Amino acid sequence: MKKRFLPFLLLAALGSHAQSTDYSITGVPFTQVKLNDHFWLPRIQTNRTVTIPASFQRCESTGRVRNFEMAAAKSGKFCTTFPFDDTDIYKTLEGASYSLSVFPDPALSKYLDTLIDKIAKAQEPDGYLYTARTIDPAHPHAWSGQERWVKEAELSHELYNSGHLYEAAVAHYQATGKKNLLNVALKNADLICAVFGPGKRGVAPGHEIVEMGLVKLYRVTGDKKYLETAKFFIEQRGQRKDYDAKNKNPWKNGSYWQDDKSVYDQTEATGHAVRAEYLYSGMADVAALTGDQKMIAAIDNIWNNVVGKKMYVQGSVGAIPDGERFGDNYDLPNTTAYNETCAAIAGVYWNQRMFMLHGESKYIDVLEKTLYNGLISGIGLNGKSFFYTNAMQITNNFSHTAMEPERSGWFDCSCCPTNLARFIPALPGYVYAQKGTDVYVNLFVSGDASVNINGKPVQIKQENNYPWDGNLSFTIDPKKATPFNLLVRIPGWANNEAIPSPLYNFQNNSAQKTVVKINGSAVEYTVDKGYAVLARTWKKGDKVEVILPMEIRKVVASNNIKNDINKVALQRGPLMYCGEWKDNDGRVSNIILPGTSSFTSEYNAALLNGVTVLKASVPAVDISNDGLNVSTRAQSFTAIPYYAWANRGKGEMMIWFPEKVKDVQLMASDEVLTPVVNH
Amino acid sequence: MKKRFLPFLLLAALGSHAQSTDYSITGVPFTQVKLNDHFWLPRIQTNRTVTIPASFQRCESTGRVRNFEMAAAKSGKFCTTFPFDDTDIYKTLEGASYSLSVFPDPALSKYLDTLIDKIAKAQEPDGYLYTARTIDPAHPHAWSGQERWVKEAELSHELYNSGHLYEAAVAHYQATGKKNLLNVALKNADLICAVFGPGKRGVAPGHEIVEMGLVKLYRVTGDKKYLETAKFFIEQRGQRKDYDAKNKNPWKNGSYWQDDKSVYDQTEATGHAVRAEYLYSGMADVAALTGDQKMIAAIDNIWNNVVGKKMYVQGSVGAIPDGERFGDNYDLPNTTAYNETCAAIAGVYWNQRMFMLHGESKYIDVLEKTLYNGLISGIGLNGKSFFYTNAMQITNNFSHTAMEPERSGWFDCSCCPTNLARFIPALPGYVYAQKGTDVYVNLFVSGDASVNINGKPVQIKQENNYPWDGNLSFTIDPKKATPFNLLVRIPGWANNEAIPSPLYNFQNNSAQKTVVKINGSAVEYTVDKGYAVLARTWKKGDKVEVILPMEIRKVVASNNIKNDINKVALQRGPLMYCGEWKDNDGRVSNIILPGTSSFTSEYNAALLNGVTVLKASVPAVDISNDGLNVSTRAQSFTAIPYYAWANRGKGEMMIWFPEKVKDVQLMASDEVLTPVVNH
Repeated sequence: MKKRFLPFLLLAALGSHAQSTDYSITGVPFTQVKLNDHFWLPRIQTNRTVTIPASFQRCESTGRVRNFEMAAAKSGKFCTTFPFDDTDIYKTLEGASYSLSVFPDPALSKYLDTLIDKIAKAQEPDGYLYTARTIDPAHPHAWSGQERWVKEAELSHELYNSGHLYEAAVAHYQATGKKNLLNVALKNADLICAVFGPGKRGVAPGHEIVEMGLVKLYRVTGDKKYLETAKFFIEQRGQRKDYDAKNKNPWKNGSYWQDDKSVYDQTEATGHAVRAEYLYSGMADVAALTGDQKMIAAIDNIWNNVVGKKMYVQGSVGAIPDGERFGDNYDLPNTTAYNETCAAIAGVYWNQRMFMLHGESKYIDVLEKTLYNGLISGIGLNGKSFFYTNAMQITNNFSHTAMEPERSGWFDCSCCPTNLARFIPALPGYVYAQKGTDVYVNLFVSGDASVNINGKPVQIKQENNYPWDGNLSFTIDPKKATPFNLLVRIPGWANNEAIPSPLYNFQNNSAQKTVVKINGSAVEYTVDKGYAVLARTWKKGDKVEVILPMEIRKVVASNNIKNDINKVALQRGPLMYCGEWKDNDGRVSNIILPGTSSFTSEYNAALLNGVTVLKASVPAVDISNDGLNVSTRAQSFTAIPYYAWANRGKGEMMIWFPEKVKDVQLMASDEVLTPVVNH
Repeated sequence: MKKRFLPFLLLAALGSHAQSTDYSITGVPFTQVKLNDHFWLPRIQTNRTVTIPASFQRCESTGRVRNFEMAAAKSGKFCTTFPFDDTDIYKTLEGASYSLSVFPDPALSKYLDTLIDKIAKAQEPDGYLYTARTIDPAHPHAWSGQERWVKEAELSHELYNSGHLYEAAVAHYQATGKKNLLNVALKNADLICAVFGPGKRGVAPGHEIVEMGLVKLYRVTGDKKYLETAKFFIEQRGQRKDYDAKNKNPWKNGSYWQDDKSVYDQTEATGHAVRAEYLYSGMADVAALTGDQKMIAAIDNIWNNVVGKKMYVQGSVGAIPDGERFGDNYDLPNTTAYNETCAAIAGVYWNQRMFMLHGESKYIDVLEKTLYNGLISGIGLNGKSFFYTNAMQITNNFSHTAMEPERSGWFDCSCCPTNLARFIPALPGYVYAQKGTDVYVNLFVSGDASVNINGKPVQIKQENNYPWDGNLSFTIDPKKATPFNLLVRIPGWANNEAIPSPLYNFQNNSAQKTVVKINGSAVEYTVDKGYAVLARTWKKGDKVEVILPMEIRKVVASNNIKNDINKVALQRGPLMYCGEWKDNDGRVSNIILPGTSSFTSEYNAALLNGVTVLKASVPAVDISNDGLNVSTRAQSFTAIPYYAWANRGKGEMMIWFPEKVKDVQLMASDEVLTPVVNH
């Protein structure tokens, strides 16, 4: 095989890539950011010691690995549920690769090589890699079609498998420098590029991700055909003529697969939420690399639609269980919220790319909201229990029975656990970004980062107790005095903006303003696109302090969201709070949060691995056992961070609380959910 | 004109008509039943002294009479809203005719002749009568079409006008013996029969009633073409091919006009409720006269559908405002109930015919439920205020704004007031029925009736204080001892059956049974098709007493009606009760009727022209002004007969009450409807 890819370290060192057009900003790679953060480091370590091993173990025990072995042997019978089960191995491999780059682990490294060897052997001579067909080509998986790719737009997910292979391969190459998996990926991608394209075969991939994967291969190799094929796939959408455009059913009109219109004509987020956000992420990549302004305009419109009309208050998207999809505008019911964990992860991918396109903090505001709330709620504190869906409300009568009240170890369709396995260790790559002499601080995560300003290395040490505390400290250590701009994101929530749209607003504006100090003295600062711009010639040991206001805030929703009318949610810093049965005498559906209720915050190191809780005395409604009498009494109410719910058993949970008695959902005493305590 | 109609008195004397096939039972005509009933006689007198004069006055003042004058002059411009406004005159004329037969009134009689003269002059030489076209044939009403009958299936209502003309003409002839209006009707009907029929023009009349009207002309004249044309129109339904059968929209698939299927294939009541029930009434007439068993089977199915799945608890039908139509099975919402008054009247017409076909009391049970509740609720106690719709619930937040909280004097489309004007004075015709030597007592209304048993006259005097009291007395006065069967309806409600279907049931079964005494001694009686059969040779002065159990009953709905789950309604005798603001401290939406609540009844002669009210001490829910505290307290609750609501101003009204606190619709104090008292 010819040496056709650019050395990763060279790419990383360049700061921007070799292409003439690209994102105006690039993330500072995860390999240059060493975390020692009290909030994130334990999660990354748990990911390494628990999640990834458990994930590989499940790939083995459920037969996912055996599928590859059988494909290599071309004998046996595909032994798991879905033809895309191959991707669980790719995703875990991707997460393990990130982990290895930070925590060397020869045994894990060797295991990865063994797995990669099995993957390589399962690949057909022309590069095709899809165990659901290769094991027994005459009898492929029922969803796969009798020929390669004939069912791609519907159910086969052959290109979905390819996309995750490419993502894993590039991560593995970047993290380890090894090319064994990358070579498999490139061989597969060469086949895809040979088969699909203008004048060749066309298809709108049924579950998007191959677009992002191909772009990553392009970035590694510089080979334009990967980028061109990614663009080709994106532009294939809306070309199929056999949908019924007048049918409202998203499966019948193509919108379930984002295939109802050309992407250039799409203005609203529709269909399966994960597929949609993977598409929008791929569009951002291709638009950045091609300068396609029309494509950027399309995802700008869609972003405004999502953030303005289709996002839950804790940053989750994809409200509708039937189809795991976006609902209509403002259709955000609490009792049936679907909110797939993968959709939260996809949202982070997409918002990071929107930021890199536009350099505006609002994208990171949304990313942070999702990250600290609706994304990490997907994984239990033990690192091996997962939500596929992320409920907004668990109450007995009024909860959809399909909503998950507790996390599971694995799922038949186990996309979410393995997506978390790959996302969590990549987190360091989201903390900083750079554009020439502009260094962006996007997330407030303690650790040491290395950036390169005009060839000169600069260390940035971040120290804080975020998200519990708003006092942020940054120590700048250039080798020698270096002029550059430190751009510190002032979160929207610190600026009286609950979300960058009118969808949610704070009921009580903060009286405090964000304070910035340099070397102990408060400084005036200008804000550009949401960032405090600190421009100076930085000297070794310069210290920046940023003090964010951490009042407890009540959030109200737009009246367009009918399910949230007359209700409030609680926020402090980036965290959304919920009330859970465990802290509140066994239930929360009888609680009222009046406008007059006054909360205090209190850090409790012993609770849920350490959390700041919110407390207030509030009215609670009691119904007598015979159902004929009702009364209110004052009760001590405790709210915990939403991400931490469902770690102590199963019972009521609510995010939105009525402000007045009249909006309480009354229940007879025998209808109230009896909590189940985990032991 | 040739003398082609049978003398009315001969027809009446025959007891059954000249046709070989007909209803097995016929009603004892209103002319043979003289009421002195304390409940109905005042209503009939108010109809005569207030409703009919007010109705004629409005026909004059709104331009309805002028339309006829302009049509006679063939000049001017149609000056009312709808092309079917002619029918308001026909219907008032019909009511006035019934009235005249009981209360001779030379001035009224003269006025009717003047009006009839105007109608006759508006008729075109060939019999066509439709002022909306005749006034200016080049510029007919927008709904009428440029040619006669071309828009009949949609909006012109030419045959609807004809149908009401025939009904009025027959009533006028029967009541007065005069033929001036009947001649106009026959001239019009001859044109219709010449134009429509096999091998001629076909249409499914857009708003049914011409079918019933033609049958009445057939009964009067014995001329078969009227019957044949009625049957032709009925069988025209479902023949149009330009509907979209797959479209759910009832306007697009023809079901709004009952034109989606052949009547023989219709099994469910669909579309506009008044049109539907007029059709089913016409089908019963035609089936009775032709012996068409398939047509009878169709209306039997439809009747089971209505009574089993589409009737409100107070006997109203046509739940859906959009289209004034039947909803889906069990779709009976309280806050948006439409319940057109005309649909209640149409239901009485249809059920009377079903009884005459089958001789079963269940049809009269439904008729009685509608008559005493959802029908007479349509007219205020003053006789000149009317509901077009009959609400099930008036509460502030939860009521559809289209629901009427108070009656009006007239409507642009004033079908309901004039339908009441013609229905009320015809009531005596619904009290008795006869089949040879079987005399049916269907309604319990005091007065004197004359029946003819094998040529021998028998007087039946009914004395009671119904519906307030269940003690019924009948005195039989044959000229000489005559054997015949007196069949007294034992109402379903007296027999623990709330309605002849599982749609509604009593929560508490009655412990008492109906007692029948003859000449002071209790007798055993057999029940056949719901009637107590009292067979003997009746002698002058024989006295029958029937004692119906009048306990207060709680009604519960089938769980299929989701809006009524965990709720109860109150019934006593045939009357359904409601709670109204006026008797209950200004509101009722906060009231609970627990299973343990115990009611007493109390007649109040000063209230609402005299009503029996129901009283209990029940819990009421109070919310504090700040909305943060809720409590229950015992309150004295008074329920009034549903028909009598909205006679004392405007405020909350409910029929279905929650049994427990949890099902109360809580409202903030400032959302509670403030009553408006009429002065």
